[in-house]
Amino acid sequence: MMKVTEIKSLIGTVGGLKVEFTPFLNRELPEPLYSQLYQWIKKEIEDDRLLPGMKMPSIRQLTTHLKVSRNTVESAYQQLQAEGYLESIAKSGIWVAEIEKPSLQPEDKIHAVKSDCKPSSNVVVDFEYGNVDLDKFPVKQWKKCLTDAVDQENNWLFEYGEKQGEFELRREIANYLLQSRGVRCKPEQIVITSGTQSSIALICRLLELREEHVAMEEPGYSGVRTVFEDQGCYIEPVPLEKDGLSMEHIQSSRVKAVYVTPSHQFPIGMVLSISKRIQLLKWAYQTGGYIIEDDYDSEFRYRGQPIPSLKSLDEEENVIYLGTFSKSFLPSVRLSYIVLPPSLMIQYSQKSKDYNQSVSPIIQRAMSLFIQSGEFERHIRRMRKLYQRKHQALLKSIEEQMGTKVEIVGEKSGLHILLKVKGVKGSELIENGLEKGVKVYSPSRFWMNPNAKRNSYIMLGFGGLSIEDIEKGVGILASCLP
Amino acid sequence: MMKVTEIKSLIGTVGGLKVEFTPFLNRELPEPLYSQLYQWIKKEIEDDRLLPGMKMPSIRQLTTHLKVSRNTVESAYQQLQAEGYLESIAKSGIWVAEIEKPSLQPEDKIHAVKSDCKPSSNVVVDFEYGNVDLDKFPVKQWKKCLTDAVDQENNWLFEYGEKQGEFELRREIANYLLQSRGVRCKPEQIVITSGTQSSIALICRLLELREEHVAMEEPGYSGVRTVFEDQGCYIEPVPLEKDGLSMEHIQSSRVKAVYVTPSHQFPIGMVLSISKRIQLLKWAYQTGGYIIEDDYDSEFRYRGQPIPSLKSLDEEENVIYLGTFSKSFLPSVRLSYIVLPPSLMIQYSQKSKDYNQSVSPIIQRAMSLFIQSGEFERHIRRMRKLYQRKHQALLKSIEEQMGTKVEIVGEKSGLHILLKVKGVKGSELIENGLEKGVKVYSPSRFWMNPNAKRNSYIMLGFGGLSIEDIEKGVGILASCLP
Ligand SMILES: Cc1ncc(COP(=O)(O)O)c(C=O)c1O
Ligand SMILES: Cc1ncc(COP(=O)(O)O)c(C=O)c1O
Repeated sequence: MMKVTEIKSLIGTVGGLKVEFTPFLNRELPEPLYSQLYQWIKKEIEDDRLLPGMKMPSIRQLTTHLKVSRNTVESAYQQLQAEGYLESIAKSGIWVAEIEKPSLQPEDKIHAVKSDCKPSSNVVVDFEYGNVDLDKFPVKQWKKCLTDAVDQENNWLFEYGEKQGEFELRREIANYLLQSRGVRCKPEQIVITSGTQSSIALICRLLELREEHVAMEEPGYSGVRTVFEDQGCYIEPVPLEKDGLSMEHIQSSRVKAVYVTPSHQFPIGMVLSISKRIQLLKWAYQTGGYIIEDDYDSEFRYRGQPIPSLKSLDEEENVIYLGTFSKSFLPSVRLSYIVLPPSLMIQYSQKSKDYNQSVSPIIQRAMSLFIQSGEFERHIRRMRKLYQRKHQALLKSIEEQMGTKVEIVGEKSGLHILLKVKGVKGSELIENGLEKGVKVYSPSRFWMNPNAKRNSYIMLGFGGLSIEDIEKGVGILASCLP
Repeated sequence: MMKVTEIKSLIGTVGGLKVEFTPFLNRELPEPLYSQLYQWIKKEIEDDRLLPGMKMPSIRQLTTHLKVSRNTVESAYQQLQAEGYLESIAKSGIWVAEIEKPSLQPEDKIHAVKSDCKPSSNVVVDFEYGNVDLDKFPVKQWKKCLTDAVDQENNWLFEYGEKQGEFELRREIANYLLQSRGVRCKPEQIVITSGTQSSIALICRLLELREEHVAMEEPGYSGVRTVFEDQGCYIEPVPLEKDGLSMEHIQSSRVKAVYVTPSHQFPIGMVLSISKRIQLLKWAYQTGGYIIEDDYDSEFRYRGQPIPSLKSLDEEENVIYLGTFSKSFLPSVRLSYIVLPPSLMIQYSQKSKDYNQSVSPIIQRAMSLFIQSGEFERHIRRMRKLYQRKHQALLKSIEEQMGTKVEIVGEKSGLHILLKVKGVKGSELIENGLEKGVKVYSPSRFWMNPNAKRNSYIMLGFGGLSIEDIEKGVGILASCLP
């Protein structure tokens, strides 16, 4: 089928060997060039013409030789890296990786070629955000909840489960929210979802946000931004001030909904002031707009009085509240929820009547037993103390070892911090750290505006690290500073 | 805030009492009338002005008195029924239900007001589709898999999990598909999802189907149709012939994708003939269109040789294969998957890199242990025999007890059958059956065209029923025939 109209050739001196690069790139095919390039290189590797340990031509070299855009080569390389065919080694280049080729024979035990593979490198301390603590987790109790759930009588195990989520769990969440966040709601207003992104997709459907404008903090959670974009929304990035998002921007906009993280702005970390909360609610009442309050990590506040949630201040019905068990319990339960204002319940049941619930009732019932037993409360209390100690250790190490070369950004809460670095680019520090075995992250994807000064930040998650590792990691990182 | 411009009044003689209906319906409010009516009735019930056991005015009465459309009243009543405030009793009318009013006090133990509540009536045999058999389920082994999964070393429990799904499970699925369906694929091509609807939403994003035309069998699975519609696709309903969907319609259409259930057309039940399979593949190769093959219940085929899946016949890369564990294992695991052609993998990783996996890795790993241990194979073999016996018992009872008054539609496979009834409307038979304690269902929502002759069918699922109940249920149903 493939008609070849263009043959490009490049001799690469790779790994001491000469290898001829002759990808057949055909601009007339519907398949994009990067994809053709990706397929070709992959085949070369699979057929052992490119061998593990060979160095690939640089992106620049290949771009020039193939007369394609930089993007084309970059995308192909990225994909090959994601699939484990190539490996990028900092300051050294891109290499053909050592992989076990998966066979089609089911008998062979195929080795894991992870699609979001982490470099098989010498990382000693990984400040990845999203992980939670593992030492103090009540494994035994959780296992008991799982098996007790399966044992619960009734036929639920053999059915699809309630579309809105198991009632038991919604009841526990309603109780929990009242006690911990001052949110008064009935189980009937709660919808269980399989993650905050699913919550957002559901809200887009409910509020009919396609082709509508939606405001988000800039920077803000990219996972949510992607969903809004994929659902056809136009995002209005709203700049941040010391006390949260700029209300002037909201007021002069024509957005139908505002997505905010008022308890602990993601990723910067400030708290939305009470006066801005009131202004935001007023804006909603006046325009009929909706506020989507993402209260993702409010359980972990280490200092000062918590400010009431927007939902608890909402006197009309304009706040949609989002919660998750990913921080307070385990990201691997994939369990989140929405609290809808009663006025949206009809739309909900009309627009969702044909949708099945996507969280397994087994997980939902286990979680509800876990909450009922009091374990969840205890777990949160334990974790709050533990994370507070980790947070303190992190700040102390940074102050002691990095001094004025960095500035700690954000409030005293949550499971991550941002550092503003001085005298060096964030990306350089990340690379240098990686070489010495410390992984820290760039928060740059959280900015929508590519021209923002986002390269001065690095992001450190600490939930899954021990205090020793935190101290060690900061020490190594400090040694990478100029 | 509410400006009242219209006050309607109706005296209802309900439950022997006179009750005044004075809903404040305001056409100038953005809130639709049905929603206002719903809110008002709900409040009347909550404030004990309408009491349990009172009979509501009929839809017709209320429509006339309020001078609103029938739809308005119907929607309000439906919502109130869904939430358990009202109860519809066949041939008797609509009544205020006995409910425990949920309180806002967390101390009170709120009783379940199920949102998709089943009538608390005298249903003896429920032919609901979607349930699976519960007697032979290996509960012990499944519990062991759950706890063994949690015990698996590694930090996965405290992380988000692989975006595409746990590799272990994808490997097991790849092996299973090769053995059972002749589908050759690598784990890298498999994406785990939390249900077939999630699979469809993902495919819409991947193929950029918004504003595109998509073909579906008519009738077809409404759960999938809703997702396509919500994602902005235009559905082209394709009529069915004896051997599956009309290829002429496909060929003369300009659809970008075709969603089909070739192994066992849902809900009618025929098998797509091999010649049509070839034609469909040819259509795809010629137009560059995609075939979305939903192989939801192919495990349960009771007679004849299975025809190869479209995916196994696909020589280019135009078939996207969908599978689910809802029929072969448990609907309550909420575990389904997509097999993508390799040529779509780049698009997948670009368009999905910001999405978290939505199925809990706990469930995924437990499932993968269950398959690895051989239990899954054994379970399917056991279930196939069991469902075959149930299916035979169902057909035999129908033939013996209903004779020529009905016609059994569809092939010898799956977990449901359709009956074409003669001399009585499907809806009447459903109502009469309900009154005598047998619940059968209308498949009418599976037709897109509201003028289709869909009222001559009733649908019976039998997966969750015992043979005795099947026989009893058919007996009662037969007694409702004219
Ligand atoms: C702002 C924000 N909201 C919510 C979440 C949690 O998402 P989920 O509920 O899908 O785990 C995160 C996770 O990183 C987040 O950063
Ligand atoms: C045609 C069809 N596909 C798929 C499914 C299964 O969907 P899920 O995987 O979400 O359980 C069903 C369930 O009724 C169905 O009828």
